[in-house]
Amino acid sequence: MQVGWDGSLGGDFITTVARELQLEEGVLADELYFEDLRPGMKIRSIRSYEITAAEIKEFAAKYDPQPFHLDEVAAEKTFFKGLAASGWMTAAITMRLRVESMHVAGGMIGAGVDEIKFTQPVRPGDWLRTETEILSARRSTSRPEIGVIKSSTLVFNQRDEVVMRSVVNFIAPLRNNN
Amino acid sequence: MQVGWDGSLGGDFITTVARELQLEEGVLADELYFEDLRPGMKIRSIRSYEITAAEIKEFAAKYDPQPFHLDEVAAEKTFFKGLAASGWMTAAITMRLRVESMHVAGGMIGAGVDEIKFTQPVRPGDWLRTETEILSARRSTSRPEIGVIKSSTLVFNQRDEVVMRSVVNFIAPLRNNN
Repeated sequence: MQVGWDGSLGGDFITTVARELQLEEGVLADELYFEDLRPGMKIRSIRSYEITAAEIKEFAAKYDPQPFHLDEVAAEKTFFKGLAASGWMTAAITMRLRVESMHVAGGMIGAGVDEIKFTQPVRPGDWLRTETEILSARRSTSRPEIGVIKSSTLVFNQRDEVVMRSVVNFIAPLRNNN
Repeated sequence: MQVGWDGSLGGDFITTVARELQLEEGVLADELYFEDLRPGMKIRSIRSYEITAAEIKEFAAKYDPQPFHLDEVAAEKTFFKGLAASGWMTAAITMRLRVESMHVAGGMIGAGVDEIKFTQPVRPGDWLRTETEILSARRSTSRPEIGVIKSSTLVFNQRDEVVMRSVVNFIAPLRNNN
């Protein structure tokens, strides 16, 4: 299994492997600390995620019960002109893809969302992948043992159209807590 | 069934009823148009939503598979010191409560998120409710038949602690499209 790790050039893509894949093969997880997450670093999802009508409807029934997310026929007459995923489902899948590709020590713990834009409908049969860039990394003033990482994520479908973009902050512990 | 509707004072809370409840009782749904959504208007969720350990784990297994969302024992040793809901689950439940309480004509269709802050962990046994305030309403320059509503939502638990706050934009059609 290949574990690419080269953030030194800033613009190169990095692909890490998911914790479960690493554990399956008995490879020690690469835990990311604050010092590892440098502005300009880019991380791709390790896979694409298939969108199914079943998942769109199941998510919508629980969290966003509106006709354009629940039923193909009813959706035809709506703004979306067909079944489309709830934006909150797309956001949740984005988290899944991010968690799989970036194994932050102690877990990827959110420190707030600065922006989400939904730029294209997500449809059954789409395959989503993510590209995340580290925008900034600052140490916490109140908690010297952690830092706050600001990241931008583009979510692409199989036609390389951006369906969602977001700016999300998360915390990362310092490896060397001086 | 009581359908309160008084936005004229600006600060008063409004409680609408969910589409499904309205239909059950054969009451015509109150459809909200751009003109109805005035800055200062406040809308409460029509109910509280119970958080269960089962839903926390089920959501996490799909979208945010990290120890503090998946397993009570493993969660004890993490940042959260116990099982906590994924922030994306809290955001999704917030959408559910908003959709139930505000019946926008044509559906509540997102036009981007300006901010989400997670201010307290959400735990099994919590009950969440929302209070939404309309911050601004502007007509679209490119599409004269719709407007864009900016709304702020506070999500409270049963101890009236704010667990999440967000600023979300959505579109609303004009009733009188001059």
